Amino acid sequence: MNKEQLTALLESVEKGEVSVREAAERISLLPYEDLGYAKIDTHRGLRQGENEVVYGASKTPEQLLGILEHMLAGDTASVLITRLAPEAAAYLEPRVPLFYDALSKIAIAGDRPQGEGVGNIVIATGGTGDIPVAQEAALTAEYYGNRVVRLYDVGVAGIHRLMDNAAVLAKAKVVIAVAGMEGALASVIAGMVSCPVIAVPTSVGYGASFGGLAALLSMLNSCAGGVSVVNIDNGFGAGYLANMINKM
Amino acid sequence: MNKEQLTALLESVEKGEVSVREAAERISLLPYEDLGYAKIDTHRGLRQGENEVVYGASKTPEQLLGILEHMLAGDTASVLITRLAPEAAAYLEPRVPLFYDALSKIAIAGDRPQGEGVGNIVIATGGTGDIPVAQEAALTAEYYGNRVVRLYDVGVAGIHRLMDNAAVLAKAKVVIAVAGMEGALASVIAGMVSCPVIAVPTSVGYGASFGGLAALLSMLNSCAGGVSVVNIDNGFGAGYLANMINKM
Amino acid sequence: MNKEQLTALLESVEKGEVSVREAAERISLLPYEDLGYAKIDTHRGLRQGENEVVYGASKTPEQLLGILEHMLAGDTASVLITRLAPEAAAYLEPRVPLFYDALSKIAIAGDRPQGEGVGNIVIATGGTGDIPVAQEAALTAEYYGNRVVRLYDVGVAGIHRLMDNAAVLAKAKVVIAVAGMEGALASVIAGMVSCPVIAVPTSVGYGASFGGLAALLSMLNSCAGGVSVVNIDNGFGAGYLANMINKM
Amino acid sequence: MNKEQLTALLESVEKGEVSVREAAERISLLPYEDLGYAKIDTHRGLRQGENEVVYGASKTPEQLLGILEHMLAGDTASVLITRLAPEAAAYLEPRVPLFYDALSKIAIAGDRPQGEGVGNIVIATGGTGDIPVAQEAALTAEYYGNRVVRLYDVGVAGIHRLMDNAAVLAKAKVVIAVAGMEGALASVIAGMVSCPVIAVPTSVGYGASFGGLAALLSMLNSCAGGVSVVNIDNGFGAGYLANMINKM
Amino acid sequence: MNKEQLTALLESVEKGEVSVREAAERISLLPYEDLGYAKIDTHRGLRQGENEVVYGASKTPEQLLGILEHMLAGDTASVLITRLAPEAAAYLEPRVPLFYDALSKIAIAGDRPQGEGVGNIVIATGGTGDIPVAQEAALTAEYYGNRVVRLYDVGVAGIHRLMDNAAVLAKAKVVIAVAGMEGALASVIAGMVSCPVIAVPTSVGYGASFGGLAALLSMLNSCAGGVSVVNIDNGFGAGYLANMINKM
Amino acid sequence: MNKEQLTALLESVEKGEVSVREAAERISLLPYEDLGYAKIDTHRGLRQGENEVVYGASKTPEQLLGILEHMLAGDTASVLITRLAPEAAAYLEPRVPLFYDALSKIAIAGDRPQGEGVGNIVIATGGTGDIPVAQEAALTAEYYGNRVVRLYDVGVAGIHRLMDNAAVLAKAKVVIAVAGMEGALASVIAGMVSCPVIAVPTSVGYGASFGGLAALLSMLNSCAGGVSVVNIDNGFGAGYLANMINKM
Amino acid sequence: MNKEQLTALLESVEKGEVSVREAAERISLLPYEDLGYAKIDTHRGLRQGENEVVYGASKTPEQLLGILEHMLAGDTASVLITRLAPEAAAYLEPRVPLFYDALSKIAIAGDRPQGEGVGNIVIATGGTGDIPVAQEAALTAEYYGNRVVRLYDVGVAGIHRLMDNAAVLAKAKVVIAVAGMEGALASVIAGMVSCPVIAVPTSVGYGASFGGLAALLSMLNSCAGGVSVVNIDNGFGAGYLANMINKM
Amino acid sequence: MNKEQLTALLESVEKGEVSVREAAERISLLPYEDLGYAKIDTHRGLRQGENEVVYGASKTPEQLLGILEHMLAGDTASVLITRLAPEAAAYLEPRVPLFYDALSKIAIAGDRPQGEGVGNIVIATGGTGDIPVAQEAALTAEYYGNRVVRLYDVGVAGIHRLMDNAAVLAKAKVVIAVAGMEGALASVIAGMVSCPVIAVPTSVGYGASFGGLAALLSMLNSCAGGVSVVNIDNGFGAGYLANMINKM
Repeated sequence: MNKEQLTALLESVEKGEVSVREAAERISLLPYEDLGYAKIDTHRGLRQGENEVVYGASKTPEQLLGILEHMLAGDTASVLITRLAPEAAAYLEPRVPLFYDALSKIAIAGDRPQGEGVGNIVIATGGTGDIPVAQEAALTAEYYGNRVVRLYDVGVAGIHRLMDNAAVLAKAKVVIAVAGMEGALASVIAGMVSCPVIAVPTSVGYGASFGGLAALLSMLNSCAGGVSVVNIDNGFGAGYLANMINKM
Repeated sequence: MNKEQLTALLESVEKGEVSVREAAERISLLPYEDLGYAKIDTHRGLRQGENEVVYGASKTPEQLLGILEHMLAGDTASVLITRLAPEAAAYLEPRVPLFYDALSKIAIAGDRPQGEGVGNIVIATGGTGDIPVAQEAALTAEYYGNRVVRLYDVGVAGIHRLMDNAAVLAKAKVVIAVAGMEGALASVIAGMVSCPVIAVPTSVGYGASFGGLAALLSMLNSCAGGVSVVNIDNGFGAGYLANMINKM
Repeated sequence: MNKEQLTALLESVEKGEVSVREAAERISLLPYEDLGYAKIDTHRGLRQGENEVVYGASKTPEQLLGILEHMLAGDTASVLITRLAPEAAAYLEPRVPLFYDALSKIAIAGDRPQGEGVGNIVIATGGTGDIPVAQEAALTAEYYGNRVVRLYDVGVAGIHRLMDNAAVLAKAKVVIAVAGMEGALASVIAGMVSCPVIAVPTSVGYGASFGGLAALLSMLNSCAGGVSVVNIDNGFGAGYLANMINKM
Repeated sequence: MNKEQLTALLESVEKGEVSVREAAERISLLPYEDLGYAKIDTHRGLRQGENEVVYGASKTPEQLLGILEHMLAGDTASVLITRLAPEAAAYLEPRVPLFYDALSKIAIAGDRPQGEGVGNIVIATGGTGDIPVAQEAALTAEYYGNRVVRLYDVGVAGIHRLMDNAAVLAKAKVVIAVAGMEGALASVIAGMVSCPVIAVPTSVGYGASFGGLAALLSMLNSCAGGVSVVNIDNGFGAGYLANMINKM
Repeated sequence: MNKEQLTALLESVEKGEVSVREAAERISLLPYEDLGYAKIDTHRGLRQGENEVVYGASKTPEQLLGILEHMLAGDTASVLITRLAPEAAAYLEPRVPLFYDALSKIAIAGDRPQGEGVGNIVIATGGTGDIPVAQEAALTAEYYGNRVVRLYDVGVAGIHRLMDNAAVLAKAKVVIAVAGMEGALASVIAGMVSCPVIAVPTSVGYGASFGGLAALLSMLNSCAGGVSVVNIDNGFGAGYLANMINKM
Repeated sequence: MNKEQLTALLESVEKGEVSVREAAERISLLPYEDLGYAKIDTHRGLRQGENEVVYGASKTPEQLLGILEHMLAGDTASVLITRLAPEAAAYLEPRVPLFYDALSKIAIAGDRPQGEGVGNIVIATGGTGDIPVAQEAALTAEYYGNRVVRLYDVGVAGIHRLMDNAAVLAKAKVVIAVAGMEGALASVIAGMVSCPVIAVPTSVGYGASFGGLAALLSMLNSCAGGVSVVNIDNGFGAGYLANMINKM
Repeated sequence: MNKEQLTALLESVEKGEVSVREAAERISLLPYEDLGYAKIDTHRGLRQGENEVVYGASKTPEQLLGILEHMLAGDTASVLITRLAPEAAAYLEPRVPLFYDALSKIAIAGDRPQGEGVGNIVIATGGTGDIPVAQEAALTAEYYGNRVVRLYDVGVAGIHRLMDNAAVLAKAKVVIAVAGMEGALASVIAGMVSCPVIAVPTSVGYGASFGGLAALLSMLNSCAGGVSVVNIDNGFGAGYLANMINKM
Repeated sequence: MNKEQLTALLESVEKGEVSVREAAERISLLPYEDLGYAKIDTHRGLRQGENEVVYGASKTPEQLLGILEHMLAGDTASVLITRLAPEAAAYLEPRVPLFYDALSKIAIAGDRPQGEGVGNIVIATGGTGDIPVAQEAALTAEYYGNRVVRLYDVGVAGIHRLMDNAAVLAKAKVVIAVAGMEGALASVIAGMVSCPVIAVPTSVGYGASFGGLAALLSMLNSCAGGVSVVNIDNGFGAGYLANMINKM
């Protein structure tokens, strides 16, 4: 149930079309529905403006199926699933309508939203290896109806590649900078634009990258204004936050 | 020079009031002015929408005075200085017009901007000890003309204090959550609102807080959507970013 | 041999039914029995009130069988085994009576205790992914005869799920809070109840969760009273301690 | 307001001595009182069974005075203050009735509770240097009316010192084990008793103790049952939790 | 070539049985022989009193065969190989005379030394899981002709198991304490004996053991005298050092 | 396009052989060519003196093929590929001319440069296990036309092996010191020579080597002059830098 | 009471000069004497062969005086005190006979042992800055009657300084290698001698030495045999252990 | 004694002006001179091409004076001293000829070398706070006779400041990039030049900079070729290495 649906319900009450008691019951159902192993937050759309997202990494295929069936049986037209393992996707595909992108491990159960997309989110990566994380961010943002521009492999070691795209960056309402290794991309971009930059450190690298720690610390210490950071490899988090900012 | 000033200049050129050559010279001066120990970015207002900020912590009082005098002698009406030590403030006060807040170590040289403030930035802290960092964020946001609501000492150990302020949080366009120790404030707030939450870990705590590391990691791992993180104790960074988002 | 058995033995001596010498011999056998690769603490029931538990992770199936056969051949009716790999369980099952829960890797050799359970231990998890660890705690507590209430998937990002269960929490004699990622669950619960809260960080998460370190530090820095912490993923330790507290 | 006071109030309502409206108002005041820089949780006694405790380390003397005056002006007979710096104590002493223990930095404003103490909490330290933390735990537990037995300087390097006190340990309802350096005390004690052991790592040590990290990790990895851990140097937390368990 | 062989050679020179030139040539060959990928230190027996040991972990089976064939073709009667993978052992076994212990991954190429063993090295482990590392130490010490007493599964959580073996410990010339998890064994033993204790942290454990880091730090911070520490899981290093001390 | 090619082009313009427009177009193509997933820096030879190198670890075989085909179709005679997995090499080998060294995972697509090599780069390793990283450095340096002397297995535990090669080291223009474990090799060599020493920590080791961290920190703290450090296992980086220094 | 004194006592019993009861009482007093804040281990001489040592760092001057007066009033002729702050030394000097070395912070209360010293302990340092720690080791070893040879400032960056002292090292029964920064000294020395090497990392250094962590890890990863490690800056521990080994 | 001096000596021998014996004696004195607390390496000029440098941080003023007097009394015309505390400088200034730069804590005892300087070393800093470290590098390089160009405050957050100095960078034979916080400067510069880049992380920053760790890791993970790294704040090491490379 989203805000519009709630407003409609309350108007029906006002008009006498729905009894107070019935409305109360429907609203009292809102908080969540309990499957035992999961409490489904069916009115997150109401509280936070977007439907609940299912984190696929730590659930069994059977748990996932249970959650999806429950959600799609209600008012929910589609559900975004992150970090869905290929095996789990293979299990789900014959059982629920499912779009699955193997690179980013993003899936959409139910109807995949279509359309142009609003605003302008630019997603840049330092290298080719950062693309899966960037793609997780991009598909998330597109799922929520945003327009996304991809700017891949523009790492700071070849600064002219970034400079040549200054115009693309300048038009962004929000930029997502995805980089592993030394993670300098976020600082350099933030110095070039006047919009928020969401930095996503990735675990791309080896040795003293320590699984993305080097990029994470680098981004947290950015000397440029307007930068904030999400967890290592958290493309979804960046895409979700960018959606919030882009739609303001 | 900010965007309005630049637009005005270019319109003067269009009208023939200013020669192309003179305009070109003024614009060519933009990149920065070089004091040897510092390269002052006088047109950051143009590129990023806001004037340059001076990081006070690693400069001598004499260097700071040089930078401020140079900036205030130009088009810059006021300069924000962060992490200004009390001794440096005492040195500067008789020499330049200066507002100084000892708690947050924020200073404003030149004219302190006045007025109501736009939008709605809510700044919440977990405890009383987090107030200096929150204040750094608040004064930064207010300096740039934002309306700020302070919600201090609403840590998660007494969750009802936060619940009672749900309405205040619901009206925010962006929330800054400032917390040390376990840093759980950001996650809980993010679950209650539908706007971006900027998480600021603080070094408040002892033992296994490891100077703010515990809060930092906690915030990076937030299981709630819409959270991003800045450096430990980086109130300025949070205020600056909140300003960007709030004004969208 | 547990306290009751020892008391019975000593009473038999007092009554002259058992000679002092025979009693001394039986008691002198108490300390442990030595299998070479393991020294079995057969009178832990006497010293600590509960039979010894076997840590299954670092022993070969053959060693485990040797230990179990030895223990079950004595006064021990059943043995709890933690972190038993599926392969080891498959090896043991045809050889000793064995209950095995694959999710939590808990096994019980010998007679599985039955019955209602005393007191009230509430076990809450932040998410679905934390259930295996919670289940380890729950089965441990139930093995020792405690009543356990499971409250799964009540993480702080949807704080109302927790609030709705305030009454369940209020009735607990001790709460076990199991959470990965940012681990904020323990602090929030501790602020809602007036009983001890045992916090169990889990390795659920990725990137800057660093295998559970983020949740661990978060829980250690809890600003709420009554919280103490066990090792990452140590559901057994939490269940064992909860048993102690619940039976007081 | 504690549970007894609340029950009394509600009984007065039942008897008609207090109007429902007046009772409601008094109860509605419960959540907290807001001093701006602090939200005082005046009914923590109601929710958690004990009055609020003031963390002295991150508040100015003036803020502390404000909080104490406010609390003592209400139903609160006394307030426990932890980590109170000597300077702050010197500022408060002429202004509010104050007991102050410089070693542990524990203070009690208002009436210091007297009397025998109930139950049996044993507090053991590895060395002489751990005594300040142990004393913080001891004074906290005594403040809440518990009987405390001190067993100082019984570190594992001279294991006979601990063995000689086996009888003292055996009588404990809960043990607090306070140790720095290698922190082995908690494991050894837990192997000797059948009650909960609260482990407090301390920052006593140098070099690879890394400010208490070595003791912390050691205690978290205890191979003995019934051990849980609080933050480094967190004597208060241990004393508060021991109080909960001891009174069960 | 060992010290005795060298002395014999020099005596032959003195007696005129070997020319100075020939002796010089044989001695000039001592430093090492170069296989390209390895420089074999054939006179380590001369310098350090023991033959060279081959670290098996980072060499291919072919490289290992080359080294062993070269060494055994000279004056070397046997070679100790550590951390030899089962696959490499299977490759070597048909090609050189080889004793291989799969548990500790210790191998001996050539003649395995026999006999009683001198002195008295006691090797204690905290648990059953530490036995592979202890065995690496034991086989190393036995290879060099030492008498070894094994005392396995005597961890501090059941301190009486250790106490019961006080007499065994008291007779040791040097003790090797092998323990994972909290690593407290070394401190407790060092408080019971008056000989050197070599502490070997192991990677046995999970969660906050961080691959043996907890035990390592614990042992480095031992508050008992006479303890020194080798690398995590370095049973060989402990056995080699114990051999040096035991033979003094 | 390298500097010579650019100079030739500009001379052609000067002579009138190539129109300004055509030259401009060819130069405007320089920055990079965009394959979507990669932006190929075809004029790195111009900017940095050497052709672009392809980091093979985080690209799919298909992406790699696309990049190589594009580059070899232009002015590029050969491309160096680092960290190429054997599976990717097997995919590429039938499709492009490829030299592949499985030990170091270095590949060269196109024509492998031949010839003597200039200058003198000495590459030393502490042990046999460090050879794959050393080989990555050696093949890189040889690819760029340098003369390389290999000095393997000269670790500091047998310091005479190093001393005996003092003359080899003395002739070096630059030394690459490759070592895992304690990483002392770099310091000792730097004390023996008067040329730059590039230190490469490797992940060879176990336990407290923490994946090469011990060697990395050791090398960064070298008390000898002329030492600088590259990432753990970064043989390519060392070889590339040595090439720069050797050709000066 | 040391072993000789105990033997004498028991012989007196045998001869009838001391009654069994009196002897039992004197022995029953052995375990320790309890000052409340400290439990003095007066018969450590009996158990471990040496008198108790007082760790001065975490005790007040008054506590130290109490301990020393108590010990010196008994059979103890002298007491070694480590890490005694200058202020505490100044407090003690007029009250007990005291030798104090300000550089190493070692003090000896009572009679300072004199004489030649037995055996041969060589103490080497990497640099001049490591001397205070080395001196702590040297004075400890000399206090227990060992002969000590000091070899200071022989760090590996000038390897010839170490080579020139090969003969001095060759005569050692045990070597203590004291070094900060990269800590390579221990490995190089261990490759040159055939006796045990006790490695003492020091906190000398800056930046990535992380307070001695770099040297500690380096020494733990030593690729040379016979090396073991004590805590950072733990000169006392090294001297105490060297005494044990040297006297074998 | 440097190479020229040695060559002159040997030529004198050849001409018969100096006897072989006298020359041998002078050369045999070379290795070092022993002051007890320091072994002075008087012929480092011969081995490494430059005179010894004195690390001032861990020596007493008296030790420093002893070393300087000894060195200046010989063939050494001047000595470079790093990290000399102001107090030590004040002690030395009246006793030896001394140049002292308080900002970088660099001192030169004896004759300060004059002259133009050869080659071209560019030293860039990210911010004003990095200047002390940069100055340590610059004065070191100038001491050895190099030409140094300072490019301060060109951090990546204002990338145009760096771009504007592309020509300056392009002329460098070696660049030293000095930066704290996120340390991205080294990568960006390395992408712009074709000469070696020596990266110096600094401890400038706060919070998650962890004393320079963030910049250190960032620089080690640089995705640009030709970068190597020295210790945090090690300006001297960078200057010394740059001197080596610049003079090639």
